Amino acid sequence: MSTWIKGIAASSGIAIGKAYRLVEPDLSFNKTTVEDATKEVERFRKAISESNSELESIRNYANENLGADKAAIFDAHLLVLNDPELINPIEDMIKNDKVNAEYALKETRDMFVQIFEQMDNEYMRERAADIRDVTKRVLAHLLNVIIPNPSMIAEEVIVVAEDLTPSDTAQLNREFVKGFTTDIGGRTSHSAIMARSLEIPAVVGTKTATTDIQNGDMLILDGLAGEVHINPTEELLQSYKQKQQEYQQQLAEWAKLVNEPSVSNDGKHVELVANIGTPKDVEGALNNGAEGVGLFRTEFLYMGRDELPSEEDQYNSYKAVLEGMKGKPVVVRTLDIGGDKELSYLKLPEEMNPFLGFRAIRLCLERTDIFRTQLRALLRASVHGNLKIMFPMIATLDEFRKAKQLFLEEKENLKNEGVPTSDSIELGIMVEIPSTAVLADQFAKEVDFFSIGTNDLIQYTMEADRMNERVSYLYQPYNPSILRLVKMVIDASHKEGKWTGMCGEMAGDETAIPLLLGLGLDEFSMSATSILKARSLISKLSAKEMEELAANALQKSTVGEVIELVQSAVTK
Amino acid sequence: MSTWIKGIAASSGIAIGKAYRLVEPDLSFNKTTVEDATKEVERFRKAISESNSELESIRNYANENLGADKAAIFDAHLLVLNDPELINPIEDMIKNDKVNAEYALKETRDMFVQIFEQMDNEYMRERAADIRDVTKRVLAHLLNVIIPNPSMIAEEVIVVAEDLTPSDTAQLNREFVKGFTTDIGGRTSHSAIMARSLEIPAVVGTKTATTDIQNGDMLILDGLAGEVHINPTEELLQSYKQKQQEYQQQLAEWAKLVNEPSVSNDGKHVELVANIGTPKDVEGALNNGAEGVGLFRTEFLYMGRDELPSEEDQYNSYKAVLEGMKGKPVVVRTLDIGGDKELSYLKLPEEMNPFLGFRAIRLCLERTDIFRTQLRALLRASVHGNLKIMFPMIATLDEFRKAKQLFLEEKENLKNEGVPTSDSIELGIMVEIPSTAVLADQFAKEVDFFSIGTNDLIQYTMEADRMNERVSYLYQPYNPSILRLVKMVIDASHKEGKWTGMCGEMAGDETAIPLLLGLGLDEFSMSATSILKARSLISKLSAKEMEELAANALQKSTVGEVIELVQSAVTK
Repeated sequence: MSTWIKGIAASSGIAIGKAYRLVEPDLSFNKTTVEDATKEVERFRKAISESNSELESIRNYANENLGADKAAIFDAHLLVLNDPELINPIEDMIKNDKVNAEYALKETRDMFVQIFEQMDNEYMRERAADIRDVTKRVLAHLLNVIIPNPSMIAEEVIVVAEDLTPSDTAQLNREFVKGFTTDIGGRTSHSAIMARSLEIPAVVGTKTATTDIQNGDMLILDGLAGEVHINPTEELLQSYKQKQQEYQQQLAEWAKLVNEPSVSNDGKHVELVANIGTPKDVEGALNNGAEGVGLFRTEFLYMGRDELPSEEDQYNSYKAVLEGMKGKPVVVRTLDIGGDKELSYLKLPEEMNPFLGFRAIRLCLERTDIFRTQLRALLRASVHGNLKIMFPMIATLDEFRKAKQLFLEEKENLKNEGVPTSDSIELGIMVEIPSTAVLADQFAKEVDFFSIGTNDLIQYTMEADRMNERVSYLYQPYNPSILRLVKMVIDASHKEGKWTGMCGEMAGDETAIPLLLGLGLDEFSMSATSILKARSLISKLSAKEMEELAANALQKSTVGEVIELVQSAVTK
Repeated sequence: MSTWIKGIAASSGIAIGKAYRLVEPDLSFNKTTVEDATKEVERFRKAISESNSELESIRNYANENLGADKAAIFDAHLLVLNDPELINPIEDMIKNDKVNAEYALKETRDMFVQIFEQMDNEYMRERAADIRDVTKRVLAHLLNVIIPNPSMIAEEVIVVAEDLTPSDTAQLNREFVKGFTTDIGGRTSHSAIMARSLEIPAVVGTKTATTDIQNGDMLILDGLAGEVHINPTEELLQSYKQKQQEYQQQLAEWAKLVNEPSVSNDGKHVELVANIGTPKDVEGALNNGAEGVGLFRTEFLYMGRDELPSEEDQYNSYKAVLEGMKGKPVVVRTLDIGGDKELSYLKLPEEMNPFLGFRAIRLCLERTDIFRTQLRALLRASVHGNLKIMFPMIATLDEFRKAKQLFLEEKENLKNEGVPTSDSIELGIMVEIPSTAVLADQFAKEVDFFSIGTNDLIQYTMEADRMNERVSYLYQPYNPSILRLVKMVIDASHKEGKWTGMCGEMAGDETAIPLLLGLGLDEFSMSATSILKARSLISKLSAKEMEELAANALQKSTVGEVIELVQSAVTK
């Protein structure tokens, strides 16, 4: 049967390959009476033997690739699997009670697990977990279902999952995973951002991928249109192989733009820059033609550790990025922690609405010890490149003034200590809170630049948590109200001779780019892999025509009307 | 010692009286050795005897005022208190071990509680709770601290508490509680709203009231200035008695305005209407001179019950309010549930950020069964008065169109059933989401009116949960960005010949009223008890001058500048 499902195009490209379901399998079964107990015992032994081979190969793979300590887990599993004290009671039960193997396995497992779990001995309680794991595997073989093991993928596949968490993806063998599709998520979910960073196509939010797709189904994953074709006809397959080739050619075309400026077809220059998360991302940014870094998130410095990072640690990271970018502008965002991002060593009170809570600059202005350390590290690093600093979650001018004051104090302190700092560091703010956009004309008199953080600005302006499936339909980047706020910010900055960037997902979005060009955006910061495509798109657009288009969009009343307008204007 | 503390003026008026601390007492103590064990036993017996009298009077009070079943609890306590099996071991321990009574009491209590709690018998486990309660009371007498019992207040007092929950206030004897002051909370916290509804003065958010005030301290509670004077001098006391009298005179002056229109001193008419929560509130609204109801919250119909309210139940409530208001306009808000307001019979998924989640119109447009029932009840009631309907949490025009469509369908259905409905019901929306304010010109073409819900609009525009103490400083009603959004909404409505009301706390706020008058607000909806004062204030203002004031405020950059501006203009 050939069929297809529609989702959200989360990462460009076309992948063709077999489906690999990364889904918790259904291991339910009924208790039945068996006529031929001997045959049932044989079926059981076959499942044991299959589990044995499987565990051995996992053990060997782990030993080679993950180290001996990880492999030891599977040695323990093999011992359990071959323990007559577990096997014999199951076989006896099948023979004596004439029940199916699944039922005998479950009953026997439950008995052993109960015994071990009640023991007052850590080692024995761990054995209970082993028994659960091993019997689950045998049960899967009895039921002919597969327990997915992503680290074992050894052929080219397209992963099908409900959702992909960061830990799921850490396990994926990137050599073989050619793309993925998920039931849930949107363009800004973790899985989507990661797909773009891995440069593999992805279609998310299909709702039914895990229901409609079986293991081994042949899939065409169209990350451009947001479609997944299941067991396509040979004709469709050929046409997509053609498309895939064309896309590869397009990538090659785009690659030629790597050292070109970003200019519209009527000569308007803009800057296309990259969002990065660590110094390691600098290489990818440059390879993809970034003219700078529009958002260097500094949270990585604070995460995955037991204490606050030292000034020296931070200095080294900032220096690495500034030097790596070779004089190109680097906009560093100061610590944006709190809300959904927590630090183990920084106890924050639990909040009813973390997105409306104590986070980012609000936290930094209270914990000035943390903030001053970061500012010092940035100031020290400023001599190694073209540094700009921006503060996240600014809601009032008072907050910006306080943050600037701390910056100036630390600059003065360093001067008194004889430490050199740059005198041309621009200080800007993220515009991600509606009040700040509405009051942009007042802010523009005091800040050096704006960077619009659309991921938050949209969810705050529409009052919809984009991670909440029930209201994610309200996450509308092209809603005229969002475009009007963007316009207010850009106009306000230009009136004062300042500039405006954008560092949310919207800046790299094909439908948004014509509008943003028309609204006068100066700097577009996006996933590095989106830059060349955006540069190509902009080179085909007339800034003058886009100005008219944007003016028109601002007068629309719904997001549907705006999308229609852009599509008819840009594809004509 | 005479001293004073500053808080937030949450409810007007002046109260003078003794402090009654509604605070969990500090029952900590040290283990000590006693020289004279006989004297210590006597001290213990005195505490028992005091506890006995106290429990007896509570029992008698409960029997007379709360019913025999509530009194029975204290009978049980009295039995425990006089049980030799509890008393004797304590006395023995004091004598034998020469420890203080507090320690002997605690050790013996812990032993009994442990025994009873481990019993597999519901009745015995309840006895453990009784032992805890009774020993706590005895311990309090030993330590000379008082366990507050708000239902027993029998003299005029000013309650001092950390915070007052709805259940605390349900227990207060309103005859004797002349005012209250709390450590936490703001003008829009539950305790503040309740004080205004009870018409008693309140000062909230003092931070230190429970630290600085002892039981029995003489207090002056100044709900106008937000000050609490502790043990004032005779001179201050006299001056406040004078002020109190003047305030009473002012109230009498204001009362003369009860049937007057609301007009500025240069002849501009506005409407002052009431926020109500149940049909019972209609009387208070009319007594306080309300020209209508600007917000009838319908959640009371859905709360405190086991299933959805029937169409008939709802119809009767809506009819009661419409008839009670005698043809004056009544704006009913459709169900605003979800977020922090939950219903036991309506299972909603837990959300990370409920304020950005599945609530109000978002829920109603999915659960159209619930919504249609409410719309039918409203339509049927519409023939009994002047009904206007508004939808909460509208973020997009698509949502309003869907809601209106359902309304029209139910109107058609009723028509086909031969049920009469009014043909002049206005359909409006709450403006409490930034996107809706920004796009008000588009909405104004389709809605009949706007009602600005400032409590939410402010917290969403500033991105600060007002219930979250750490960021409540960002809840800034007079921030120029808020004023600009209000202006956008009012101007948009007038351009299309529609009107704009406001039903958040801001509409009754003395500093906001001059600005709102100047911005052209048509309808001010507030706590009933604020109406006459607001009418008096407006009668002294020039609408023309306030227009200039507002225009000026829109160009300010911080909330501090706006407050300064209003104060210098209005008090001059």
